[in-house]
Amino acid sequence: MRVSLDAMGGDHAPQNIIEGAALALRSDARIKTLFLVGDESRIKSELEKHRMSNDSRVQIVHASQVVEMDEDAIIAVRRKKDSSLSKAVSLVNDGKADIVISAGNTGAYFSISHLKLRTLEGVDRPGLACLMPGRDSRFILMDAGANIDPKPEHMLQYAYMGSLYAEKVFGIKNPRIGLYSIGTEENKGNDLIIATHQLLKTSGLNFCGNFDGHEIFSDKFDVLITDALTGNTILKTAEDTFRAVGYWIKKSVKKSLIRKIGALLMKGSFADLKKGADPDEFGCAVLLGINGLCLKAHGSASPRAIQTTIHRAGDFVQHHFNDHVIRVLKEVSQNKSFPADALR
Amino acid sequence: MRVSLDAMGGDHAPQNIIEGAALALRSDARIKTLFLVGDESRIKSELEKHRMSNDSRVQIVHASQVVEMDEDAIIAVRRKKDSSLSKAVSLVNDGKADIVISAGNTGAYFSISHLKLRTLEGVDRPGLACLMPGRDSRFILMDAGANIDPKPEHMLQYAYMGSLYAEKVFGIKNPRIGLYSIGTEENKGNDLIIATHQLLKTSGLNFCGNFDGHEIFSDKFDVLITDALTGNTILKTAEDTFRAVGYWIKKSVKKSLIRKIGALLMKGSFADLKKGADPDEFGCAVLLGINGLCLKAHGSASPRAIQTTIHRAGDFVQHHFNDHVIRVLKEVSQNKSFPADALR
Repeated sequence: MRVSLDAMGGDHAPQNIIEGAALALRSDARIKTLFLVGDESRIKSELEKHRMSNDSRVQIVHASQVVEMDEDAIIAVRRKKDSSLSKAVSLVNDGKADIVISAGNTGAYFSISHLKLRTLEGVDRPGLACLMPGRDSRFILMDAGANIDPKPEHMLQYAYMGSLYAEKVFGIKNPRIGLYSIGTEENKGNDLIIATHQLLKTSGLNFCGNFDGHEIFSDKFDVLITDALTGNTILKTAEDTFRAVGYWIKKSVKKSLIRKIGALLMKGSFADLKKGADPDEFGCAVLLGINGLCLKAHGSASPRAIQTTIHRAGDFVQHHFNDHVIRVLKEVSQNKSFPADALR
Repeated sequence: MRVSLDAMGGDHAPQNIIEGAALALRSDARIKTLFLVGDESRIKSELEKHRMSNDSRVQIVHASQVVEMDEDAIIAVRRKKDSSLSKAVSLVNDGKADIVISAGNTGAYFSISHLKLRTLEGVDRPGLACLMPGRDSRFILMDAGANIDPKPEHMLQYAYMGSLYAEKVFGIKNPRIGLYSIGTEENKGNDLIIATHQLLKTSGLNFCGNFDGHEIFSDKFDVLITDALTGNTILKTAEDTFRAVGYWIKKSVKKSLIRKIGALLMKGSFADLKKGADPDEFGCAVLLGINGLCLKAHGSASPRAIQTTIHRAGDFVQHHFNDHVIRVLKEVSQNKSFPADALR
């Protein structure tokens, strides 16, 4: 595969990005070309640190500008034509790369991708699919923040794309699709949820019904479908709760020496916890429904998180993910009663 | 105050409810009458356990039916006219009690309250205000699940009611009002959020702008305004994340003896954590905008949580909370440019 990596996007760029790239180059034989897009001299000096300057798979593409993390997306798109983000996306548009990855400004990333690559054939609106941990498994949350005020038909397309993601990339057979609502009953929720529920029932997908916030980590579904505002709320509230619990534990441990010793002995558990549920591990998101593959690493992604995201990129490319989406959505639009085996 | 308590509502009713009532009777001198509504013989036997059978403040009101926790609200309202929930609310309607408390079926509770007590003068739609912990403080989340598809004007009324709640019940001067959105910028969010933002700016309230899910526990606001679906999502996702973290820690501790010893030494910290952020402590919610005071304890409320809820009921009654709401909303409707001192 040929990966286009925005070397300047993210809170710890380019250091973490290049270190993650180096890790991936050493561990993923599927990488044929890795474009590193951004400030050439900084990229070169980071590559030297990790002794990867002479790797023939690496190609540096210089970009003179950087989209800041808190910059307004529309302004970034208009004024920063030579940003690393914009040039990284262009490499896919020009057919030079198969997939683009950035840990940068989410809004700007998706605006640029949408603008340059357009939507995929048969897709009405792209949606953001985010991987999250369950108690003992993991699930895909979609839409996690792309499409404010979606229609039921968009939600149905998210369910098809999310199901294909779970099947093709994670190898889950017949993925369980859940619909997020305010309660589990079929008639609960707002108009969007109630209409989407009816569409999912006859979708041919393995639809398991409605789930509410008390079942987020229940392992009862592989894909959870929701609108952007709610999805974004689930994602960010879970992250902030996770951090708050860490804060409360630390605060309470400081109160006594015994607790401090206990915390020291439990160090491994806390490391497990961070590894198992940290947004760095699970923060990888993908914008599905774009005519081109766009992966988003967490803004504060560690080198290992970047490496993981590059591996995941390999899975998308290897399985020709978008071809499956086009095929399935065509089947769906042609057969109003969806044939259950179209997903195979 | 005269409290009407649904003795049969909740996962551990009537045991936890009566035990909580006994704790409150022993600790809150403001209680003049405590109505215990439900199965008379079961209530009597629970009262005996806690040696409260002879407390002259206790009055048992027999009810032959119980609304189950997972029962459909509309069916419960129609078919169970003699439920403990329905009779508990009626005591407020009949002027016999000042406030009603239930840990039972939320949907049925609010349908019955709304139906029997009606909305408060000047209020368009009642909203659910839920108390949540911050990192080092606490905040009121509203609406946490009552009014699906609200209008911006409803959200504005929630802000006034939430501000009064923070001020009158918790003694917070000039409470900081936050608006939940998908991002912090003024132009971010859906149509509802953008319109509400504009109303809040000229509301005379101490409006601090938009906050997203990454700032839920940030201590940056005293009241967070949102629609029912999002509020319910924040509340439930936070609760489920909290439980999932507990599960992940336990699972990881089991892996080694050292960790088990560490966990034992940290026992106090975990107890602190549960006490400081457990939904039992913070699960108390109040339906604001009803012509009568309705408090909701968490379904799985412990006796201490019931006691806390009864104390909070005392604060609402003591401060004549609804009189303030009527007065402020009248001021607001009369003066389009809201005078900042109307909240005093």
